Amino acid sequence: MTGHGTVATPLFLPVGSQAAVKTLTPAELKGLGINMILANTYHLYLRPGVPVIEKLGGLHRFMAWDGALLTDSGGYQIFSLAPLNRLSDDGVTFRSHIDGSQHHLTPEMVIGLQESLGADVIMVLDECPPSDAPLARVRSAVERTHRWAERCLKARRRRDQLLYAIVQGGIYPELRRRSAEYLSSLNFPGYAIGGLSLGESKEATYDMVAETVAFLPEDKPRYLMGVGSPEDLLEAAARGVDMFDSALPTRVARNGALFSRRGRLNITNAVYKKMDEPVDADCPCYTCKTFSAAYLNHLFKSQELLAYRLATIHNLSFLSRLMRDIRSAILNGSFTSFQEDFLSKYQTTNEEVRLEQKQRWLRRPRDYKGAVDSRSDG
Amino acid sequence: MTGHGTVATPLFLPVGSQAAVKTLTPAELKGLGINMILANTYHLYLRPGVPVIEKLGGLHRFMAWDGALLTDSGGYQIFSLAPLNRLSDDGVTFRSHIDGSQHHLTPEMVIGLQESLGADVIMVLDECPPSDAPLARVRSAVERTHRWAERCLKARRRRDQLLYAIVQGGIYPELRRRSAEYLSSLNFPGYAIGGLSLGESKEATYDMVAETVAFLPEDKPRYLMGVGSPEDLLEAAARGVDMFDSALPTRVARNGALFSRRGRLNITNAVYKKMDEPVDADCPCYTCKTFSAAYLNHLFKSQELLAYRLATIHNLSFLSRLMRDIRSAILNGSFTSFQEDFLSKYQTTNEEVRLEQKQRWLRRPRDYKGAVDSRSDG
Repeated sequence: MTGHGTVATPLFLPVGSQAAVKTLTPAELKGLGINMILANTYHLYLRPGVPVIEKLGGLHRFMAWDGALLTDSGGYQIFSLAPLNRLSDDGVTFRSHIDGSQHHLTPEMVIGLQESLGADVIMVLDECPPSDAPLARVRSAVERTHRWAERCLKARRRRDQLLYAIVQGGIYPELRRRSAEYLSSLNFPGYAIGGLSLGESKEATYDMVAETVAFLPEDKPRYLMGVGSPEDLLEAAARGVDMFDSALPTRVARNGALFSRRGRLNITNAVYKKMDEPVDADCPCYTCKTFSAAYLNHLFKSQELLAYRLATIHNLSFLSRLMRDIRSAILNGSFTSFQEDFLSKYQTTNEEVRLEQKQRWLRRPRDYKGAVDSRSDG
Repeated sequence: MTGHGTVATPLFLPVGSQAAVKTLTPAELKGLGINMILANTYHLYLRPGVPVIEKLGGLHRFMAWDGALLTDSGGYQIFSLAPLNRLSDDGVTFRSHIDGSQHHLTPEMVIGLQESLGADVIMVLDECPPSDAPLARVRSAVERTHRWAERCLKARRRRDQLLYAIVQGGIYPELRRRSAEYLSSLNFPGYAIGGLSLGESKEATYDMVAETVAFLPEDKPRYLMGVGSPEDLLEAAARGVDMFDSALPTRVARNGALFSRRGRLNITNAVYKKMDEPVDADCPCYTCKTFSAAYLNHLFKSQELLAYRLATIHNLSFLSRLMRDIRSAILNGSFTSFQEDFLSKYQTTNEEVRLEQKQRWLRRPRDYKGAVDSRSDG
């Protein structure tokens, strides 16, 4: 239950980092059965600035979204997007990825910003090390994340917002367990699992999810951050995760990768140039009910802006229905067979391709003058 | 009356050169009161190719548009976008602006292509010289345009399409008159005025419109090509024009220029950063009813794709309502006072800025590798 409606779990949150789910209106999101989305404190702090949004009545009103809303603290973005100048127990000093300006944020400030934005669920500031960080580095990040979590808990004033802690611990089971146990003892309204899906193998992700969930309270929402591929959603839901967010479904949509029951297909492939059928004959979304694969292929080849929108509608419709089906399967006790059936038909994206893409993402050149690019909404 | 519904004139056609009005779905266009749009034979011939669209059931079905549809012949695009290799009475040889490949089109071929696309209104192939071309060059273009118009008339097979002739003649009143008279004698179902709004002064445009309209039949639609600013629509409607098309309203929308009763405003201006009111308080469009100017300012500053869409909705809503108001004013005999009232409040864009922009457009570097850019949908 949130301040803007009750949401059924397991639940996938589309990402609207900059106060917009790319290409879509609030009305369209609602039409896709989506009733909770995510925005990002780091992005909104830099632009347009939190005081602007506060003055205009808060984030819900600013973006005309009357459903449930979660703001990420921006910890992940500070550690992945912004060149870090200094990290200490006090907080983090970084430069804006937009204009290079220097900023300092503490756990208390991040809570204050999120109270001004006014989302229904807010997140602690955490330290998020790279996936291949050595044990000592991850241990120190876990410990700082814990100290910061306590400070966030103390700092918060608004009781109408749900503050979630974030478990860290990289791919070290012992650290995951310690982090989950320690944060559980602080009695947060919800728990996120951070620091995964950053380039480690899928097996490592799934193992760490299981290792973490086992030590989190059963009666609190468990939220796996940054996960959004159909196979990962199923695997993590099977391990007890209740909430997810990821820019993947919307980002790959804009690259022409569309979900189907058979796997992701690339609509720019020549095989679709003359295909009169919709991308997915079983799909009830506006895109598939209205247009042929050939038309989408043409729009992508022509770089028509409508292409990105129609593909986003399709992918979010696919995930919205997948989550609905997962919920039904759980309720009627058929989740395991549903999962097996889905995964037997769904061809996952080549693991190596995925890792290579992830690495490229991590190593991408930093452009201070350019706009936030399509990949920065993670 | 067209094969896809009766349309009331004066009428503005949004431009969907590549079989899509940039950022919008057919359902949205309908919701804006738009029931006729334009697509471009040159663009669709190059990509995806006319046989592809024909195989998929024609252009209406391909783009899921069940309203009225007009295809421009592509004459203007061939002369403005494509490097011209050879021009003769037979036809025109040019290179694709997309990949540099060489193509040859004759008037007969252009009719054949448009019959395959299947729009409700189709256009003759014309020769469109630059606005500053000398008299002899324009005279020769007019004469060739006449010979080509006759060939187009002979070539056409489908009787369910309305074939419009295009009057040329640059800024030479005598040539305009001759062209209008000659083409009128051929008894086309409709007449377009081409070769204007290409950088000549607004006075020259209006004078040439009046000079042309005077010699066109009163009982046939008169269509001024490439005109779409509110002040030009009013001035040309006052001179007897029934139809218009222009990429201007959608193109400037994507640059953040939004129409209002006071003139065009630039939403990226700092004055809008904290403005809680909609862009235009009187506007009933989805954008103005849902979002503040501050939110639009933020979306543009953040280069969010939703920005381009919301601005496009607003500008097309503005023009759709302007044309509706013009029609009402004509019907109840108050057009002159409506025009005076509108123009007394509407600050037109600085003429010099306009000319400079136009010149920059004409001189822009040709990029064969890049995609069709946002300016090429004219």
